[in-house]
Amino acid sequence: MQAEDLYRKAFDAYLEENLKIREPENLYKPMIYIMKLGGKRIRPVLVLMAADIFGGDYRKALDAALAIEIFHNFSLVHDDIMDDAPLRRGEKTVHERWDINTGILSGDAMLINAYRLFENYQAETFRELAKLFSRTAIEVCEGQQYDIDFESRENVQVEEYLQMIDYKTAVLVGASLQMGAIVANASQDNQEKIYQFGRLLGMAFQLQDDYLDAFGNPDTFGKQVGGDIIENKKTYLYLKALEASEPKEAQHLEHLYSINPTDAQAKVEAVKTIFESSGSAAFVKQEIEDYTIRALEVLESLDIAPKEKEMLKRFGLELMNREV
Amino acid sequence: MQAEDLYRKAFDAYLEENLKIREPENLYKPMIYIMKLGGKRIRPVLVLMAADIFGGDYRKALDAALAIEIFHNFSLVHDDIMDDAPLRRGEKTVHERWDINTGILSGDAMLINAYRLFENYQAETFRELAKLFSRTAIEVCEGQQYDIDFESRENVQVEEYLQMIDYKTAVLVGASLQMGAIVANASQDNQEKIYQFGRLLGMAFQLQDDYLDAFGNPDTFGKQVGGDIIENKKTYLYLKALEASEPKEAQHLEHLYSINPTDAQAKVEAVKTIFESSGSAAFVKQEIEDYTIRALEVLESLDIAPKEKEMLKRFGLELMNREV
Repeated sequence: MQAEDLYRKAFDAYLEENLKIREPENLYKPMIYIMKLGGKRIRPVLVLMAADIFGGDYRKALDAALAIEIFHNFSLVHDDIMDDAPLRRGEKTVHERWDINTGILSGDAMLINAYRLFENYQAETFRELAKLFSRTAIEVCEGQQYDIDFESRENVQVEEYLQMIDYKTAVLVGASLQMGAIVANASQDNQEKIYQFGRLLGMAFQLQDDYLDAFGNPDTFGKQVGGDIIENKKTYLYLKALEASEPKEAQHLEHLYSINPTDAQAKVEAVKTIFESSGSAAFVKQEIEDYTIRALEVLESLDIAPKEKEMLKRFGLELMNREV
Repeated sequence: MQAEDLYRKAFDAYLEENLKIREPENLYKPMIYIMKLGGKRIRPVLVLMAADIFGGDYRKALDAALAIEIFHNFSLVHDDIMDDAPLRRGEKTVHERWDINTGILSGDAMLINAYRLFENYQAETFRELAKLFSRTAIEVCEGQQYDIDFESRENVQVEEYLQMIDYKTAVLVGASLQMGAIVANASQDNQEKIYQFGRLLGMAFQLQDDYLDAFGNPDTFGKQVGGDIIENKKTYLYLKALEASEPKEAQHLEHLYSINPTDAQAKVEAVKTIFESSGSAAFVKQEIEDYTIRALEVLESLDIAPKEKEMLKRFGLELMNREV
């Protein structure tokens, strides 16, 4: 069994143990429903892995891991309301299965419950965990706000997009690793580096997700290929293509992003052609590689045994190793 | 100048200083909008007053006071969405002025920002403040959930109603006072007592609000007299009247609470007649007096100078001293 399978198993058992329906049921049932829909549990696994790597007992990091996973699911519940999303992991979203008010209030209670899990640590550790958690949580909210703002903005820059995905996605990956490091009492230097490693890997991962959404293999990519294009989502591919195109091609792309044709397939193909001809597809592949290389460089500079570096590297590359 | 005016002034200045619009504006503008709508600032004044009473520098409690006020306003923003309320303090609610998504996300950011204010305290104080805050915040969510549940439930008991208002309103009053006590390093015993004092006073205050909503003087009561009755809100007066009435009268009351006539005045008068004939109005007055007496008894047992007790007593009674 790979180490990460051990962590995942330990986490799942801890989750099961800790999520009990309490009164009032209408507050706690939706919380347990969303938490048990599954998912890859990447963030809590990273918390436990980091605690282990820095010489701590990974079981002592279970509360921090649970806090991160509850927070992640809180953000899904509220984002799904904002995005009017009917499905999450193939099942009804909380606000669809119950209603919007239930989604709002259960989400609020989840956020507070995430904080409460830090109470199981000593005062200094509690403070460090809660500080990192709060800073990260605010960044996630800011990232979500930028994402919403970009929908109605004309002139979004590639740099702004990168900041948005950094806040909305990457910082939480970094924070997961740093939380494990905090629980294991890692040095400040190691804490900062493991955070950077996670954050850079998170950027690479999200950009790859953008790339695969357009160019992935429909048989292996989890979501509908072309989904972002159909929804006119301003991803890196789109913004970079606008930036790198001749005015006429850019106008054509903007036109394609203003229509919602019944035959989505023709639109998807036309957009993908521009993504390639403009060089945007090649640019994003380069960005993914750059972020991955930078992540591995930071990893190399960590003050831990080579064996431990190897585990982080392998897990990181496995996350990236999806059908392109 | 009364001490509470000093605290309020200091708090308002601190609020002004700390609430700056940051990027992304759409996240922070609604936060500042709701915080600056005003209100009596009772909770932050209680935080500062308690810090002062227990020998601390009340200025050191400003962050805790701001956290409490931000949390209170967070709960208003999300509750107003759930209640579909168009107005708050005579101005548009956040979700009316912007939209529901803005209300959800700004509210989330407010809750996180409240936690961040505790970071300005030492580790042990931070932990105590955040623990009390989280427990209280969860209770407020549970109270809101019970309130929602009661709307569609037939057989709500008076005892359940009392628990609901305890969670939704009273615990935050108690927590405000205890937070001031924590910042001032008060003894555990004094902390628990000042919490109980606030909680009991909060109960008395909320029950008086229920009473005044039906029997208050329209000239001095801030809201529309009879509003709860028009909205068929199951307050103490209604639940106790059902409990204390003969079956026929109870049926009549239930009928009145099932209709929404154009002439609301006749309904309001009919309901008020039953509130009085059933003895419910007298019962709630007795409850208010009982809670107030219990609050003052706990206050008496506090280990502080008589002068300080006098200030708390006067402020508490002033809060209660509204036109009945």
